[in-house]
Amino acid sequence: MSVAEAHDTAARLTPEALAALQALLGERVTTSLGIRRQHADTGLTYHPVCPPEAVAFAQSTGEVAEIVKICARHGLPIVPFGTGTSLEGHIQAVEGGLTVDLSQMNEVVRVSPEDLDCTVQAGVTRKQLNEYLRDTGLFFPIDPGADASIGGMASTRASGTNAVRYGTMRENVLALTVVLADGRIIKTARRARKSSAGYDLTRLFVGAEGTLGIVTEVTLRLYGIPEAVSAAVCPFATLKGAVDTVIETIQMGIPVARMELLDDVTMRCVIEWSKLEGYEAVNTLFFEFHGTPEGVEEQAKLVGEIAAANGGSDFQWTANAEARNKLWQARHDVTWANSLLKETPEESVLATDVCVPISRLADCIIESKRDLDESGIRSGIVGHVGDGNFHMGLVTDFRDPAKKAAAVAYSDRLTHRALAMGGTCTGEHGVGTGKMEFLQAEHGEALSVMRTLKQALDPQNIMNPGKLVRV
Amino acid sequence: MSVAEAHDTAARLTPEALAALQALLGERVTTSLGIRRQHADTGLTYHPVCPPEAVAFAQSTGEVAEIVKICARHGLPIVPFGTGTSLEGHIQAVEGGLTVDLSQMNEVVRVSPEDLDCTVQAGVTRKQLNEYLRDTGLFFPIDPGADASIGGMASTRASGTNAVRYGTMRENVLALTVVLADGRIIKTARRARKSSAGYDLTRLFVGAEGTLGIVTEVTLRLYGIPEAVSAAVCPFATLKGAVDTVIETIQMGIPVARMELLDDVTMRCVIEWSKLEGYEAVNTLFFEFHGTPEGVEEQAKLVGEIAAANGGSDFQWTANAEARNKLWQARHDVTWANSLLKETPEESVLATDVCVPISRLADCIIESKRDLDESGIRSGIVGHVGDGNFHMGLVTDFRDPAKKAAAVAYSDRLTHRALAMGGTCTGEHGVGTGKMEFLQAEHGEALSVMRTLKQALDPQNIMNPGKLVRV
Repeated sequence: MSVAEAHDTAARLTPEALAALQALLGERVTTSLGIRRQHADTGLTYHPVCPPEAVAFAQSTGEVAEIVKICARHGLPIVPFGTGTSLEGHIQAVEGGLTVDLSQMNEVVRVSPEDLDCTVQAGVTRKQLNEYLRDTGLFFPIDPGADASIGGMASTRASGTNAVRYGTMRENVLALTVVLADGRIIKTARRARKSSAGYDLTRLFVGAEGTLGIVTEVTLRLYGIPEAVSAAVCPFATLKGAVDTVIETIQMGIPVARMELLDDVTMRCVIEWSKLEGYEAVNTLFFEFHGTPEGVEEQAKLVGEIAAANGGSDFQWTANAEARNKLWQARHDVTWANSLLKETPEESVLATDVCVPISRLADCIIESKRDLDESGIRSGIVGHVGDGNFHMGLVTDFRDPAKKAAAVAYSDRLTHRALAMGGTCTGEHGVGTGKMEFLQAEHGEALSVMRTLKQALDPQNIMNPGKLVRV
Repeated sequence: MSVAEAHDTAARLTPEALAALQALLGERVTTSLGIRRQHADTGLTYHPVCPPEAVAFAQSTGEVAEIVKICARHGLPIVPFGTGTSLEGHIQAVEGGLTVDLSQMNEVVRVSPEDLDCTVQAGVTRKQLNEYLRDTGLFFPIDPGADASIGGMASTRASGTNAVRYGTMRENVLALTVVLADGRIIKTARRARKSSAGYDLTRLFVGAEGTLGIVTEVTLRLYGIPEAVSAAVCPFATLKGAVDTVIETIQMGIPVARMELLDDVTMRCVIEWSKLEGYEAVNTLFFEFHGTPEGVEEQAKLVGEIAAANGGSDFQWTANAEARNKLWQARHDVTWANSLLKETPEESVLATDVCVPISRLADCIIESKRDLDESGIRSGIVGHVGDGNFHMGLVTDFRDPAKKAAAVAYSDRLTHRALAMGGTCTGEHGVGTGKMEFLQAEHGEALSVMRTLKQALDPQNIMNPGKLVRV
């Protein structure tokens, strides 16, 4: 879809609305095509690029509220934007309107080491936060891979490799400041660790993808940097052996920090990309352990025993920081290593994101691999297996309609397979435009409740419209 | 308030509605005064007793849906009831209507050891569930003290002594079956461990106290029974030393399962009530450690060092099951031990429930103790200190208006003190009727969002009306 087409189908920005925004923001609102494109085309997804009609750069919660009031008055759609690393079309202005870029709201407002919490503006990124925290002995563990903004991570209910121990954004956001669809500003909760004082507005806005309001500040739970960190790698004879190792590890309550599955295809790419020596291109589990020096050693010993009993052939453990970093860097480079599957530079990647009950994980992966072989599509598998969540990166030339259709059809089959196993269409990427069509199958009548909530809180349908739920 | 008065002010049950309920339920709906009274007067709170006009005993989700449809047609308020152990008036039929007793919905529907989850009907109690689970090697850790129903615990967002390690009902409910105000039945989520597929309806209904719908089934997260459990007790020279021990323990990431503060007054009662030998009536921390034998020993050693550095004088550790059970039984008996503070048998207890950021916990407790001394009210303090949550049990003769007013005024001052410190009016008991008046101060504009949600999902205001949020 060309930029011109996108605009023709949704010209919502009137001269009056633009003038009001300019009066408020001066040069911090722009209709420059280049900047508009940057806010839609981040090169990360296969979704059509739909730039907004203008981009506003907000610098405070109060300013966001004023922007929203102008948009509400003029019926102008609003698309919140952090770093643009979303994978499901969240940042596409599918109904036109204004993108509100929050990247200039990048202050760490407050850190309380005693309470193990902090408050940041929505545009702070996770790496920026951890850099800031370094001297406090604390860290924020949620790691979705990309250096996403905390506001964006809250809005998509992000998680990643550490979720098996530390939970997702759902468990680690303590409170939010939100600008509602009419410009009112609310705080969803206070700083107490727990509360039974009314409806859980925090969790309502975590994962709402900007469709109920714009998150402008986030209060987060922090953790002490572990005294000791160690890592381990173990190749498995069978996929089932690897998954059973994960299940038994969790059942025993061993507090593993990370536990990732890389299949044979992914391992082949990673070994080549990251120049890993001494590894085989077979199904492999990567582990990370956090604790005291004695604790991480004990954890690794126990997991090693479980792995050996499940056909894990060579459990390699290291507390050496350099070896560990190299290993986990390789895991983090999967996205890039995956590009070795490209046969031409024009090919790109469709990232899938199903999550199933862990008892069905081996079945789901094995069936999906068989389907992959039959369909002729190239992809590796990498899984946050402790959560039952795994990703495939379907590589094809998305400019070719037939090839694109085949990849999308594969992804659809995968999603329905996960749903049939009691799973979800998205473990951590969010709905955006990409997964909307699956919500009826996933939620049934509950989807109508989501629609009721959307209509109650955004009666004009201006908050990131065309995403998550159709009204 | 007498029963007759309660009925005069709210006669909502018409002969037509009663006939429709009788046609559906036969003898499982009753207007017997004795049964109605049982469903309001559980002897646990100081709130006025308001029995419902009738009580229905439901046996399935479908039946609850039919009951709700009849109530919706006749505009009849509905009060859900599990075990009646709520402390904030949740079960009082303050606007008349029908109590729906779910205690006959007491089946464990499904346990999946591989997925560490289960689904239970709402009337299953936590002790019943753990009894059922015993042979699976799994357990459900949330322990609010009372043997409450799982549906009630979900609806009040309960927690208790294990929350510091295992979280609250918020973190441990994976999905709910809910009957909405018009009788529609929804499932709020699937069984995947995590999901980003739409609004978090599970968390919306957890803590909604039956005001948005009736919870009929709950899918829960389970945990492996730890290989080893040990306990420790440590008296402290100062309250601040005890709280600092807690803060440092959490900062170090030591995964303590329980960490409870009993103040000098509570310790005096507990020592006498439970015949504990070798303890002093001073501020004391109780610990419980879960893990491997080596792990719990290491945890205890580390905590012992932290305690010693903070004025903990005698850290007593035991892995002996009998000694541990005796100790924790004493902790659980605090509610009864507290009755030693009664000067006459007619006196009863007002249980408070504030929760503050842990950095303010020592301040909040010290100020509250000073206020207590000045007011002449008798109470001990017992705290889930890892969460910043503590309870006082204000003992007085609530039949005496002046004494009742003094106790309520003390409780109000305590709540405002906690709010001024960034805390919440209720850490785990819920709002009910008892804390409604504080929500404006606690939430500000966000309370209007709660009202919007209530109106959107219960436009007739028949779901447990007069609780949590005023519409």
